[in-house]
Formats: sequence, C-alpha cells, structure tokens
Amino acid sequence: MKLSHLFLPTLRETPSEAEIISHQLMLRAGLIRKSSAGIYTYLPLAHRVIKKVIRIIEEEMDRGGGQELMLPIVQPSEIWKETGRWDVYGDEMFRLRDRHGREFCLGPTHEEIITTLVRNEVRSYRDLPLRLYQIQNKYRDEIRPRFGIMRGREFIMKDLYSFDRDEEGLKASYDAMYEAYCRIFTRCGLKFRPVEADSGAIGGDASHEFMVLAEAGEAVILYCDQCSYAANIEKASSIPLDCDESEELSTMKRVETPGKTSIDAVGDYLKINPDRIVKTLFVQTAEQLLAVLVRGDDDINEIKLGNIINSKFHWATPEEVAMVAPLPIGYVGPINLPKEIRIIADQRVMKMKTAVCGANEEGFHLTGVRPGQDFTVHEVVDLRSARSGDGCPHCAGRLQEVRGIEVGHIFKLGTKYSKSLQAVYLDESGTEKTIVMGCYGIGVTRTVAAAIEQYNDDNGIIWPVPIAPYHVIVVPVNKEQLPVAEELYSQLRNAGIEVVLDDRDERPGVKFKDADLIGIPLRITLGPKSLANSEAEVRIRATGEDLRWSMDDVVSRTQEFIRNAFLRIEEELKS
Amino acid sequence: MKLSHLFLPTLRETPSEAEIISHQLMLRAGLIRKSSAGIYTYLPLAHRVIKKVIRIIEEEMDRGGGQELMLPIVQPSEIWKETGRWDVYGDEMFRLRDRHGREFCLGPTHEEIITTLVRNEVRSYRDLPLRLYQIQNKYRDEIRPRFGIMRGREFIMKDLYSFDRDEEGLKASYDAMYEAYCRIFTRCGLKFRPVEADSGAIGGDASHEFMVLAEAGEAVILYCDQCSYAANIEKASSIPLDCDESEELSTMKRVETPGKTSIDAVGDYLKINPDRIVKTLFVQTAEQLLAVLVRGDDDINEIKLGNIINSKFHWATPEEVAMVAPLPIGYVGPINLPKEIRIIADQRVMKMKTAVCGANEEGFHLTGVRPGQDFTVHEVVDLRSARSGDGCPHCAGRLQEVRGIEVGHIFKLGTKYSKSLQAVYLDESGTEKTIVMGCYGIGVTRTVAAAIEQYNDDNGIIWPVPIAPYHVIVVPVNKEQLPVAEELYSQLRNAGIEVVLDDRDERPGVKFKDADLIGIPLRITLGPKSLANSEAEVRIRATGEDLRWSMDDVVSRTQEFIRNAFLRIEEELKS
Repeated sequence: MKLSHLFLPTLRETPSEAEIISHQLMLRAGLIRKSSAGIYTYLPLAHRVIKKVIRIIEEEMDRGGGQELMLPIVQPSEIWKETGRWDVYGDEMFRLRDRHGREFCLGPTHEEIITTLVRNEVRSYRDLPLRLYQIQNKYRDEIRPRFGIMRGREFIMKDLYSFDRDEEGLKASYDAMYEAYCRIFTRCGLKFRPVEADSGAIGGDASHEFMVLAEAGEAVILYCDQCSYAANIEKASSIPLDCDESEELSTMKRVETPGKTSIDAVGDYLKINPDRIVKTLFVQTAEQLLAVLVRGDDDINEIKLGNIINSKFHWATPEEVAMVAPLPIGYVGPINLPKEIRIIADQRVMKMKTAVCGANEEGFHLTGVRPGQDFTVHEVVDLRSARSGDGCPHCAGRLQEVRGIEVGHIFKLGTKYSKSLQAVYLDESGTEKTIVMGCYGIGVTRTVAAAIEQYNDDNGIIWPVPIAPYHVIVVPVNKEQLPVAEELYSQLRNAGIEVVLDDRDERPGVKFKDADLIGIPLRITLGPKSLANSEAEVRIRATGEDLRWSMDDVVSRTQEFIRNAFLRIEEELKS
Repeated sequence: MKLSHLFLPTLRETPSEAEIISHQLMLRAGLIRKSSAGIYTYLPLAHRVIKKVIRIIEEEMDRGGGQELMLPIVQPSEIWKETGRWDVYGDEMFRLRDRHGREFCLGPTHEEIITTLVRNEVRSYRDLPLRLYQIQNKYRDEIRPRFGIMRGREFIMKDLYSFDRDEEGLKASYDAMYEAYCRIFTRCGLKFRPVEADSGAIGGDASHEFMVLAEAGEAVILYCDQCSYAANIEKASSIPLDCDESEELSTMKRVETPGKTSIDAVGDYLKINPDRIVKTLFVQTAEQLLAVLVRGDDDINEIKLGNIINSKFHWATPEEVAMVAPLPIGYVGPINLPKEIRIIADQRVMKMKTAVCGANEEGFHLTGVRPGQDFTVHEVVDLRSARSGDGCPHCAGRLQEVRGIEVGHIFKLGTKYSKSLQAVYLDESGTEKTIVMGCYGIGVTRTVAAAIEQYNDDNGIIWPVPIAPYHVIVVPVNKEQLPVAEELYSQLRNAGIEVVLDDRDERPGVKFKDADLIGIPLRITLGPKSLANSEAEVRIRATGEDLRWSMDDVVSRTQEFIRNAFLRIEEELKS
C-alpha cells in the first residue's frame, strides 16, 4: 500500500478528549474516529490490526476444539426473560422494538441465545461436548463510555461457550480455553498474566481474567514473587504479614478526641499508627443494618464483602443508621452497639491485641480495647483488600502489585443458564441431565488498545510484529529517491512482505514522525548519502536501533527480521 | 473436522415454514436456525461458506483499490436528519434510544456515516480518490421477512463507497467495481448477469444489479439474444415488435357490453384480442388524479410510472375517482374524461390505428376509436413493462426472459449525499468542490442462499468448489473401514485439503444422504468390496459421476479435482 492512497488521517496535536495514551494514539495515528459516545469507526490501519488479532483468535479457538458460528446481535426479549436477566441488566442493555412492537435487545452477551440454540438441537450425550464461538459486535450502554475503544458501547468480542456432560467435561473445556488464551496473547506479542478473578454478575464458580500488563491499566493485579499465584485485587487472598503479636497490653480507657472523625485525624491526635485503630463502617441490605470492622490501615474489598453478604447492599446513609440507633457519626465503635446490628469483622481485626475504636459517644474514642474480649462479633471473615507486600496464600513468597488491562475472561458457569433455560441431554442410560456450561470472552478491540498501552513511547505506537498493520515502511528522503523506493517496495511486496511506501510529497521530518506514530516495526529510509554507498538506513521501531543494510540484502534481511520475531514467539509458546 | 464433533443438526423432514428451496435446504442441512422473524444464527457449516465468500470479496475489493474499515452499526439520528432520510426510511429502520434518551438507528445502509467521516477528514484533491468498504451486519425491519436469509431483517453486506473529484473519477471507480463484482461472482462459481437497474430510493443516475440466475429468483431479467444488453424488468426498455400498422380502419361505435368489466371479458364478448383494447387506470398523487392508458395486453411498469410522475402515488380507490367524477368502474375510457384528470398514455396506445375502450357509461364500450384523433392525451411515454419477445433497444436482437436473485447492486450516486452533508474538497486551484460519490453493495448472506438456489437437486445442496464448506467427505461404509478412513482423512488433511470424516455410528444410507444434503463436492466412500481391490469409490456431487480411484492415488487425484475446479474459474476470469 502506498501512503498517498491509504486513508490515514494522522493528527499532529493530541486531541483533548483523550485521557489515556492508547486513546490519544489511536486518534493521532488515524486508527479510529468517534461517531458518538463510545461508538467508533475503525479506519483501515486499525482494521488490519483487528483482522490479525481475529485470525490468531480463530486459529487458537479451532485448535482448542472450537467451532465458529454467528449468533444474532438483535435478540428477542423472551429468552432474556426466561433467565431473568431482562430486568437485571437495567440501563446497560440497549433495547428496541420492531415495527410490530416486539421487544428486542442488542446482545451485551450471548448466553441466552446460544443456550436456547443448543437446547433445541442437542438430544443425546453423543452430541456433546460442544465448544461454539463467534467474533462479533457486542453492545453495552455504559453510563460513562471512555478511554476510546477501551470502554466503548459498541465493541468487538470473541465469545465461546462450552457445553459438556459433566464437571469433568467442563474442566477439560476450561483448561483448553485457558491454554488457548495463553497462546493467543503470546501470539499477539503481548506481556500478560492470567489471574484468579471474581465471577461477578455472570455467575459460576471459577474464573480467570487475562490481563495485559500496562501502567494505565484499570485493574490491579497481585502476583506472588515465588509461585504462579496471581489474582485480581478484587479476588486476591493473602496472608497479612504484620500481625500484632508484639503489642503490649493496656487496659481500656475513654479518651477525648474532639473533632477527630477520621482514622488519620484520630491517629495523628493520639500519636498512633492507623494500624492500631479499628474502622467501623455500616452497610445496609434490604433486611438489616450491618457493622463492618477492618483495621484502620486496611481497605474493605467490596467484592469479598458482597460475596459474604450475598444480597444487594450499599453503604448506609446517616439517615439509615439513625433509623436503628442515634449513633454519633465518626465516633462509632463495636462496643455496645444495638443488638439489632449484625457485626462482621475482618480476621485481622480479631488478631489485634489491643486497639483504638470509637466510643459511640460524640468526641470520644476508646483505647486499649481487646477485640474478642471487650467486644465480640457475629462473623470473622476475610474482608480486607490484599495488597503488595502481603504473603502469598500458597507459598512463602510475597505478593507484588502490577496494573493490567482485562482483555480476556473465562468462567465456569456450571448449570446457571442451562437450568433456567432447560438445556438438557439424555445420558448413556437414557436419564435426563442438565448440560454443564462455561463461557470464555476476549475483548478484540480492547486487546488492540491494550497492545498500544503496553507498547508506546513519546513518538507513538510500537506495534508487536504479529499484529502490526504492516511490517515495513519504506521512506524515500526526497523525491529523487522515489524511483529506488518504488523499486524496493515492489521487491518487498513480491517477497510477500507487508509493506507501505511513503510516496507522499512531504518533508522527511513529517514522514519520519508519521512512521514512528503509526508504529511500523521496521523503517527503511532511502537517503542520498547511504544510497551513494548502496545502503539503506534501517531503524527498528521497538529498540530504536539504527542499522545500515546493503541494498542487495534489504529484502532477505527484512524477511529475517520478521521471521525472527515469529520464531521468538514460537519459543515462548513452547516454554 | 470429524462429523461426530461438528455441530451439524441436519433434518430429515422439510420444515413447513420454508417456502423456497434455499431456505428449506439451509434448515435441513444444518446451516441456519431462526432466532426470530428474519433473524438467524449461522451454524458452523454456513459460517465457513460465508467466510469463503467474504475472503473472495475482500481480495477483489482490495484489488479494485478498496480499503477495508468498519463503521458503526449503531448510528446517531443527527446525520440521518441532515440528509432527510430519518423520516424517509419509516418503519423499515430499526430505531432505539440510549440511556440518555438520544436517538439512534441500526444502520440499514451507511452513506450518511461514511460521508460524514470523509467530510471531516478529507481536505484536498490529494486525499482523493477513496474507495472505502466494510463487511458487516445491516438491519432492515422488513414488513414481511421471508425466504430465510434471502430477505432477512439482520443480514451481512459488503458495502463500498467511492469518493472522487469528478464524474470522470466516479466512472473509474464504478468501472473498477463493475469488474470486481464480475470477478467476485465468477470466483464464487456462480452463473450471474449484470443488468441495468433502476436507482430507486438510494438515488443517483446509473446503476447495475448483479443477478444470480435461478428459477426461484424474485427478479425478472430481460436480456438480448444478440448483444450484451440486459436489464431488470423494472428498468428494461424494449421495442414492441407487434405494431398495429395493418389494422383496418372503422368508425367509432357504441356497443353494449353488459357486465363485462375486465379486458378479458370485453375481449371474449366482442371476439377481439386484448391487444385491441385500451386499458384505462387511475392513479392518485397528493395533487391530482391521473388516468394512465396502456394496451390491453400490456402491463404498466410501476417503476417507470413512478419516475414519470416523480412524486408519491398509489392506485386510486373508487372513492378517490368518485371525488373527481362519477365514473362507472369497469367502463372508463379516455374519451370525454373530466378536464381535471391528466391523461398519460403508453406510446404503444398511440400507435393503435383503432381501438376499443370504455364508453364512460355503465354497460357500454366504444369500438373503432382512433387514438390521437378521437381522444388526445397530455403525455405519451414508455410505461409498458418490457417482456420476452420484444426487440432489443440497442440492436436487432430479441429480448429473452430469465429469473434471477439480486446479490449485488452498484450505483453512481453523484453528489446526492455529499451535497446534503457538505462533503467537499479543495481542488488544485484552491476552489471548493463537492465530492462525487458511488456506492456498491453485495448481500453476502444472500449470495450464499442464491448459490443454493442455483445449485441443488432433490438430494440437497451442490456447493460450487470455491465456496464449499469442505471439499471432500470421507465415508467409511461400516465400522470396519473406520481405521482406513481415519488414515485417509489424516493424509488428506496433511495435504492441505479441507476434508470431513463421517465417523458417526450411523447406517451407510444415513451417511450418504447427509453427504448429499450438505453438498460436499467430492465424496470418497470406503467399502469392503472396493477396499479389497485397494480402491475407493468416488462420487462427484455436481455431476453424479461415479469413479474408482486406487487408494494410492486418492490424495493426488483429490488435489487435482480441486485444482481443476479453480483452474476453470481462472479461465473464466480471463475470458
């Protein structure tokens, strides 16, 4: 492709609407344009990248026993009502009516429709297992779409659904997908980590997220520095290392703390660290008010809390607290709370020898409080957000923190959907059994954005070779070199190399800037000086390395450069 | 792929819901399943066919200077309001609102959104031409979706839009697409015809449809038996050959025709042919009532009529006629019509020496009426539907009729959209010019259905090799041949051949029936008798030919069979 023909509207300035690097660079490098909030056009360069990612995904899905099909985007409401998710999804689901007034949605996910399909077609154990997937647009009417295609309202996903006879079959499907996902992101040339994750709204009992490591990642990952344990911070368990064993005992005392209503303020005033204070918070469910205790230096992990409460909840408002008891906000503590309030405490609170807590009296705290003796709680659980420096739950290692972007998510669904949609089969003995399911998603467009987040510098994108829109860009410095450049371009094309020629009538500086911005792995510059020596100037985008290649060798060395990139990935796949 | 793993739910019975062959066979051969009216899931076998069609389209679009991108499906109402089509589209457009109440539609076509994109990015003549395309779902809320994926509400289309500096550029784009379309349908292995077509609602001033020839086609095509002229019957012009020159003159007479209110009844009663009668019909527009005259044996072409009237119209109801004049239905004629009624006549009416027409008096007709003398009309035009046997408008040939399925449509749009959306560029002299556009669509899923309409027999589908989901099916007659079949299957796969193995535990009859039904071009049967001679039984699906191949030659002869199929297409492309 010649740049004079390519629809590549690059921008000099960073658009103000873009908050994160990938969004900025996708706009500047002419990859995307916004149509409406969270809805984008993918321009030709982006489309090439997306197609490469899709090709890799398809190959690995097929290798993992997947069969590709295509499900409708416009789905009838009836099947969503059968599983109850028509109501659960709320505003996040785009809904519409056809000319006859029938209700439809734009599929945010496809469990309902594929389970209905399989229910209608599968009769016998011989029809199973099935691993069916599609690559298609998905729709979520995000309250605040942002970060370009990272969190859009229309985006491309690969979703595979597995249908097995039993848990053992599900395990085989899950493991096959786990491996396929590792291969996919490796083949895309990305640094990533599979991490244990919470199953969230989709339900089910095991789940991993695949995280592309990037500083701007929304997700925090904790991983062990010694074993393979890694988990989303929402899910991570850990062993808090700084237990309270050495603490001197003292007796309970009521101390004045005028106007000190935060952990930090109390700590400063009493000259103690936050880790000596018990934080008491209130949570409201439909049925009751709960007090939740954590150590002052810890944060409550709301996902863990939600899994324990196991029903809808929110942080209680002062009014809701006042409905149960007239407690002084900022001075609340676990001692002498009204009996109607159920108290749950993080396990670390109960390990404190003595602690400071609110006195349930305006302007006062208690010191020297002994958890377990001076107050008891209804439940001791793991509530605390794990964090960097904690002990690994599986070995003697310590957890490290890193940020990542979720690009894949696999779930063991079990029978959550097959039960409500009656997807059953007859086993060898003719007995009706419920199909056991898994689901496995990859954000295709998000993977492209994540790749940019991982690979960029001040000058632009640095595409990994396997998903680069083109592998090579040939840049003649001036018009005089254009004929030689055209010739080289033809040779490279004839050798099957994906190459662009910058044949535009632009200054060399502009051409170099654009080449860097769009992130082509290899730039071959043809200038008067090097050409006089029959040489080309070669710049490797990823390393910034500058090389001189004899013009006679350019084609073969370019081939070698590309081949080596793929060989390195082959090596990684084997390890 | 082994059939025991493939998700291929074939049906023995023809589903009653399916009216046409392709719909029946797509259901029976496990290619599609209905989700809701006009909305289908494409199962794995269909998905493979679709991908092959898409691959061919992409290659030819790129060859024709196209660049692939991906536009949003969910489009904001604003741009549709700019061109006025938000209202024009009516109920056929799926509409929805997001959580903030903003209006969107599901793109039925993409002129608005791509022209807006190009308007925002193109500045100079140097940025043109552009030929941009995508392959994606389209949405039309058909009043009566039917014929399976032939007329669905969610379907896959390829749409390319060309942006040129001037008419000359548009011609180059149009010609490139015309050629690309010919190559695409040839490469799909289809018998087709490009025909002149009406531009319809999309607008513009030249247009061709690409018709796959099939008996069940909704469209009627007239083509010349001598030159290359071919046109959709809606558009076709022709020279009526049976003119009325030899007719004896007689004088006008009022004759009784009691209860004879149709052309046929009047003809029978008066013992004359319908070609001697003038048919008078009424059309109502917003402004006026029109009388439309054609010869009794001719049909009015509503598209031609619409192009002449050039505003919305419908066939007048008796009440609408009565509003203007109390005319006796069934006895109306052009003589002494009220002056308020504008009369337009087909040119052939005016060539009749004498004619019979209604007397505008209940129970009476007039004979011996001389058009042009006994009555005059306001306009003489070509209104008549051309038909088989007519003369070619370009040569001395005669028109023949054939039925077809429209799978592609190309349009010269001119500046229809670029004007209303202000898509302009600066030319060499710095003058602002309006971009000249074309648009070019292929119904991808419809092409698949059309291929089935063209290639089938009583036993099922007969896929053309280039779009067959697999090229070969290996069928062991009994379990005893399974090991040999597995071995052959591996050999074929290793040779890069797309092969399925029917390893199911089924009777040979069932396997043969399914192989025929799903239409794999080559069936290789391994039975005890032929294997005893180290031979395989080979059946060519298309011709029904039965061959015996030595087991040693099966791989090479299979390769040859496939290669030859592609070579034949290469030859066709050259011719």
